[in-house]
Amino acid sequence: MTPDGPRTITAAAELIRRGDLTPSELLEQCLARIDRYEPRVKAWVVVDRDGAREQAERLTTELKAGTNRGPLHGIPVGIKDIIDVFDLPTGCGSKLWANSVARQDATCVSRLRQAGAVIVGKTVTTAFAFLDPPPTRNPWNLERTPGGSSSGSAAAVACGMCLGALGTQTGGSLTRPASFCGVYSLKPTWSRVSVNGVLPFSTTLDHVGVMANCVRDLAILIEPIAGHDPDDSSASWRPVSDCVSRIDESLKRTAEQSRDDWLPRPGYVHTASFFAETVAPEVAEFMDRIDRDLKSLAHSDAVVRRSVLPAGFADIHRHHRTIMAVEAAEVHGRRLARHPDDYPPRIRELIEEGQRVPATEFRAARLARDRLDEDMTSFHQLEPLLTPATVSAAPAADTTGSPWCNVPWSFLGVPTVSLPLGWSADGLPLAVQLVGAQWAEDSLLTRAALVEHVFRLDGAFEPRPLPLD
Amino acid sequence: MTPDGPRTITAAAELIRRGDLTPSELLEQCLARIDRYEPRVKAWVVVDRDGAREQAERLTTELKAGTNRGPLHGIPVGIKDIIDVFDLPTGCGSKLWANSVARQDATCVSRLRQAGAVIVGKTVTTAFAFLDPPPTRNPWNLERTPGGSSSGSAAAVACGMCLGALGTQTGGSLTRPASFCGVYSLKPTWSRVSVNGVLPFSTTLDHVGVMANCVRDLAILIEPIAGHDPDDSSASWRPVSDCVSRIDESLKRTAEQSRDDWLPRPGYVHTASFFAETVAPEVAEFMDRIDRDLKSLAHSDAVVRRSVLPAGFADIHRHHRTIMAVEAAEVHGRRLARHPDDYPPRIRELIEEGQRVPATEFRAARLARDRLDEDMTSFHQLEPLLTPATVSAAPAADTTGSPWCNVPWSFLGVPTVSLPLGWSADGLPLAVQLVGAQWAEDSLLTRAALVEHVFRLDGAFEPRPLPLD
Repeated sequence: MTPDGPRTITAAAELIRRGDLTPSELLEQCLARIDRYEPRVKAWVVVDRDGAREQAERLTTELKAGTNRGPLHGIPVGIKDIIDVFDLPTGCGSKLWANSVARQDATCVSRLRQAGAVIVGKTVTTAFAFLDPPPTRNPWNLERTPGGSSSGSAAAVACGMCLGALGTQTGGSLTRPASFCGVYSLKPTWSRVSVNGVLPFSTTLDHVGVMANCVRDLAILIEPIAGHDPDDSSASWRPVSDCVSRIDESLKRTAEQSRDDWLPRPGYVHTASFFAETVAPEVAEFMDRIDRDLKSLAHSDAVVRRSVLPAGFADIHRHHRTIMAVEAAEVHGRRLARHPDDYPPRIRELIEEGQRVPATEFRAARLARDRLDEDMTSFHQLEPLLTPATVSAAPAADTTGSPWCNVPWSFLGVPTVSLPLGWSADGLPLAVQLVGAQWAEDSLLTRAALVEHVFRLDGAFEPRPLPLD
Repeated sequence: MTPDGPRTITAAAELIRRGDLTPSELLEQCLARIDRYEPRVKAWVVVDRDGAREQAERLTTELKAGTNRGPLHGIPVGIKDIIDVFDLPTGCGSKLWANSVARQDATCVSRLRQAGAVIVGKTVTTAFAFLDPPPTRNPWNLERTPGGSSSGSAAAVACGMCLGALGTQTGGSLTRPASFCGVYSLKPTWSRVSVNGVLPFSTTLDHVGVMANCVRDLAILIEPIAGHDPDDSSASWRPVSDCVSRIDESLKRTAEQSRDDWLPRPGYVHTASFFAETVAPEVAEFMDRIDRDLKSLAHSDAVVRRSVLPAGFADIHRHHRTIMAVEAAEVHGRRLARHPDDYPPRIRELIEEGQRVPATEFRAARLARDRLDEDMTSFHQLEPLLTPATVSAAPAADTTGSPWCNVPWSFLGVPTVSLPLGWSADGLPLAVQLVGAQWAEDSLLTRAALVEHVFRLDGAFEPRPLPLD
């Protein structure tokens, strides 16, 4: 145990399992970090100290009685403030909803509790989960944005204020803040996690996902919350199972076999073909370095294949905007008319735009998605894709940055994992985004865990301490 | 049209249909009555004047364009404040929830809107819909209780502040306030109306129901809200249909046939056998008078049959309390521990009692209900039952009165209709409660409409003006 306490769920769970750490002690470590960093970072809307302490005590007592609920037993987590947590307000970044107390847990929250997680509080979201900048700051540089809309979740996990967090993504709201703040994220397949008790933004594009400080932790968080929910008829019946054990087996094999056999073989979407025109030179260089490193680590040119994305990708951002605007207008139109002052400029503009979209344009966007879905199915039979996670490192705090690199995967509903694997010239995290096939979270996470492992093992990526201390 | 405007949905709908009244004019009549009576009666938590005016205007415009949604088109209704209405707080009589804005309509509210109803606002409930007295006063005597827990709904309909209202009943929370305030109520079969978006109290005993100023209006209100709801897996698939037209046909036949053929033949549960020991002498006399009147109106002794209730009835109140206490503890236990000050004495005592109930006692209560269900099935093949609606007229405002006469039917989940058919010595309304078989709302309402008709026709019941003017 480092003096400061464990920063990953994996490490904390091991200490708890061995009896070297109690849930109450772990929570106090997190609360101490909240005391230290929160005044500058502003990651939380509500920290429920009393409630969290009570949960942690109960879980500590359970352990003493011999019950361990599994790797989330006693793990402090943060919940994005558009997701209902029993007896705390669900503010959604709205002024008028600041005191709207949730009568019950969202399904994903209730399942985290059952798995033993301690709910620390509600993390800052941008207003209604769109692009308007939140009060939260990037812990790596307080002048920069943490990204959005799951701003507080990313910043809190980066600071170790909690070891995992729930967020949501409609465009790039999980991957972008995770990447800007140097933490890991999983946006699962669309409909994999119930949205019961979650404020909708764009119903056919909304995803609930998770953030943490390593890939294995993402697997630990997704397993209990995925799968069928009688309270959300759109939620898929397919659970995510055996993901953690597959990662463990796969990492174990790395110790026994030659490297060429176990190195991940992602299909690399060459930046020149799609992403390079938009990403900053620094990110293009970062991706080239990842490319080189993967080849050199694998001792083979054949490992990384370059893929060309289907032709329909050129229209993806436009179609995504169309669907998102129309569905946001559906959710918010009536309320915007009643309370225009509760809507900051960017979300207001989106809703008004959505109210003007002709139905034919909306239907064309839906059709384009169906076609691309089919193209991607065959495309993905190859390998997971390796893409940049963001167009740049975190920009200044008057925006939340661009979701450009994430929008295609939100549009298609395919799972993505982001990993912080580099540093910008001014010391901000840079991340890659691995993209899997629909429902293939297990293989995607297993490969992501291998990438993480090999980069850390070879020193190609070195973590740095937060500059806040 | 009376100078004051119509007080029933039936009358208002006819005026609207003929073009003699617009939804906007009707709403202004109701708002004027709110201005006049509300400072003394305190029926409302929120009156959404702007929102209601906007809805009424839209429905007025629709009518001008030739669209009439049916008998609820433009009808002002009130919603009990444990039922979610989009963009208004759902206070539930809780101090801490006073600003908890609902993100969407409860299913029953959304269906009323689709049917053309204008949502005027939220009506006062007792705290969490139990017995602690609310601020609302009885419009027939401001020193008396309006009853509870649907206190505001009953008082508002009695004053014509709205022409119909939604309430809920777990013990006697619809029938009692309706009877005390001199309005009509329907508690439908359990699970007939979705409880999605309604604060639960006791999940296997909670019913959503309706209040209005005549039986036919109850039918108009129940038809759109009954039936399947994908968001409430416990809601029944059985809709209520053709109820209004059956009432109309049945009343039409009364004009064509001899009275003996159409007079309702309720099975009269003689007060001596079950209710007489508990009801006030005044109520016993009232029921005897109803008995005499029914016989004399029918010109026949054979019309009213006396029934003896199944033996299990003796335990019904005890078993009901057991189930209600345990389920209330389930809903509120965790929150009571966090916020004891938000719970007034009676609901607090019930929850604490529920936390102490042994499981065997709870299961015995459930078993007793299953057995009684079977007994009642054969019993009901006879006729609807005629019973007193309350043990007395409205008592002083430091209680909400006793649900004793209503608890058996809440326990069994069978439908009831209450009709104000008399006056107490001190000028308060007295009511009867007709009890039907499960799912038999249509025949129950048809018979209730005949009873109402014949009593008014023969002058056996004379309405009186509210003493507030």
